[in-house]
Amino acid sequence: MRAGAAVRRARAWLSRLVEPCTLDVWRYVADVGPVDAVCALREGRAPTRVTALAGARVADDQSLADLRRAERCGARLVVPEDDEWPALSLHCLELAVLREPVAPLPQRDRTLQLVPPLALWVRGRPRLDHLVQRSVALVGSRASTGYGEHVATDLGYGLGERGWTTVSGGAFGIDAASHRGALAAGVPTVVVLACGVDRVYPVAHSALFARVLQDGLLVSEWPPGCAPLRHRFLVRNRLIAGLTQGTVVIEAAARSGAQATANRAADLGRQVMAVPGPVTSAMSVGCHELLRDATKRVALVATAAQVVETVGAIGSDLAAPPERPQTPRDDLSDIARRVLDACPVRTGVPPERLAAVAGCDVLDVLRVLPALELAELVEWTGSGWRVTHAATGGAAR
Amino acid sequence: MRAGAAVRRARAWLSRLVEPCTLDVWRYVADVGPVDAVCALREGRAPTRVTALAGARVADDQSLADLRRAERCGARLVVPEDDEWPALSLHCLELAVLREPVAPLPQRDRTLQLVPPLALWVRGRPRLDHLVQRSVALVGSRASTGYGEHVATDLGYGLGERGWTTVSGGAFGIDAASHRGALAAGVPTVVVLACGVDRVYPVAHSALFARVLQDGLLVSEWPPGCAPLRHRFLVRNRLIAGLTQGTVVIEAAARSGAQATANRAADLGRQVMAVPGPVTSAMSVGCHELLRDATKRVALVATAAQVVETVGAIGSDLAAPPERPQTPRDDLSDIARRVLDACPVRTGVPPERLAAVAGCDVLDVLRVLPALELAELVEWTGSGWRVTHAATGGAAR
Repeated sequence: MRAGAAVRRARAWLSRLVEPCTLDVWRYVADVGPVDAVCALREGRAPTRVTALAGARVADDQSLADLRRAERCGARLVVPEDDEWPALSLHCLELAVLREPVAPLPQRDRTLQLVPPLALWVRGRPRLDHLVQRSVALVGSRASTGYGEHVATDLGYGLGERGWTTVSGGAFGIDAASHRGALAAGVPTVVVLACGVDRVYPVAHSALFARVLQDGLLVSEWPPGCAPLRHRFLVRNRLIAGLTQGTVVIEAAARSGAQATANRAADLGRQVMAVPGPVTSAMSVGCHELLRDATKRVALVATAAQVVETVGAIGSDLAAPPERPQTPRDDLSDIARRVLDACPVRTGVPPERLAAVAGCDVLDVLRVLPALELAELVEWTGSGWRVTHAATGGAAR
Repeated sequence: MRAGAAVRRARAWLSRLVEPCTLDVWRYVADVGPVDAVCALREGRAPTRVTALAGARVADDQSLADLRRAERCGARLVVPEDDEWPALSLHCLELAVLREPVAPLPQRDRTLQLVPPLALWVRGRPRLDHLVQRSVALVGSRASTGYGEHVATDLGYGLGERGWTTVSGGAFGIDAASHRGALAAGVPTVVVLACGVDRVYPVAHSALFARVLQDGLLVSEWPPGCAPLRHRFLVRNRLIAGLTQGTVVIEAAARSGAQATANRAADLGRQVMAVPGPVTSAMSVGCHELLRDATKRVALVATAAQVVETVGAIGSDLAAPPERPQTPRDDLSDIARRVLDACPVRTGVPPERLAAVAGCDVLDVLRVLPALELAELVEWTGSGWRVTHAATGGAAR
């Protein structure tokens, strides 16, 4: 089902009227519906507080032009009344609004509030709700290291292989590396922008965005043409956290924006994960801070398999534990191990001597020697027992 | 107070009679006292089970020779009856024995049991109990990377600077790097060996052990001359965990011995810590496994300050949180930040235009502009407002 043209145009107008996360406007629209809300606002019939928040932009109607600009660049406006609206993912933001007090917060906290988007400008072919159904946010620093970019690429690729969509911003560093990894796996990715979907920011990513658009999506809350103003990135980050099942912080400096994103993902009830790195790297300090904070339940993840295990359904998607090569020693009893250690390398010795060195009874020694010989760990020299060449393969410890 | 010669000689004999962690022998000695236990064992009057555990070594008395050998290399036997005995630290092992069932465990688990030492051979001048009073175990792989050795050296140094003693083994890799760091800080360290304190194992560490002996200690449960048999390292590791207030795993491969040490430290009620590393490094996989295991409460540590905070007394020894440089933006209100972002770089614009771009009321703009101007973030060009050069220092995001 697709929403009617009136609803779409109303929401297009609203998406330029106020910045996202303007709580009272969102509530007013939810109460009276978008079409009535727009009429009331334009005719000055809306509640004073809502009119005040709309501010200087209320006289300006670019909705038709915005919808046309979107169409020209292959974008559409997805509204909550559409089937394509990712309602399930964004439900966490609606719940967050229910927890907000009705009395307004002070102005300065507005960009930190968790409010659902009024509408989403979406550029690209696939359906947004389908792509984010099984998706993970990969976030991190723009000033990333080679290590961080390597891990981001690896995770994007591994998630793609496992049928999970990578959602990230469009910035340099971790964002770009994550998308590149997913694209290398041949899967669509979702870039959530803090400017209009017709703008390429940063400009150097025009080729990357073109590749994303072949199968994936560019998404934004701001109408075409809007500039990537700094405060918009904070607002955008709640959307990345909300759209996805979990957020992975790959590299972050101390007290950086990536940590703020992680906190808001946690506020939304999303699983937060962090990738460790060298303690000598300033770009891993933020990740380690998150992992050290016992109040936050941040999971340490090192591989895509571990990410999927962490966000996936319980019991499915389990990551295989890291492996260690097995040695013949592993299956030995304690006493057999001690007798083996007591055997000399060159000249064979009698069982009595082995018992003295191993600190056990001669009967114990006689009981374990056949098994050690069968395992080709010890051999009889004719005059005594010694270890075989195979058994001395590992260094002593 | 020092124990009498008879007690010391009895414990010297016992320390060669059985391998450490022979639970029933330890219990028998604790019950009847070392001197009576030795008499009973030599005369065949001890309980059958204890005699059986003593095995082939019961006929052998090298106690006087061992004490002389120790004296010749500058070592002494420290026994529980001495003031120097680190009773407070080793109390956790006595508690572990109380938790053990009286019915014996199967033979194969013997080296994994947590039993206090019967006596400790100590080489070096300082008092053992003083050195381990505020001490941390730094453990990890012998096959360490340059990164791991760098961190180990750094932690050993940082702990030394803060008045904490480093306790570790004497192996290549993390052990050696930890001691070197502590020695560079000019503080004594404690090397816990799995062989006699008169032996240098590995031989390449003779210079390192000589430096340790200038102010620190070599400690072992085995009498002089004993060889570093492989199973002894496992037994030794419980002593490293017991002597110290916490154990830091710096580098460890998947399912390695360092993890076993960490588990036993946790069993003793000690704080276990792990240093993260690159997820691309096989030598950090073990650390990350420990940190991922939610059942173990392993703390992530990146600096010596964090180690000390984790093991130190609550409220003291707090590590300073990582810092981020402050910018003038940090103190701005949300609305001020949005107005600042709305200001163009070159041509000044009127407040009405700022209100439209920032998405707020003109009155709001007029309210915050004076503060922005005072902070030298915006300036009046004569025809409008624009950002100052200082404000554009940071990249937009």
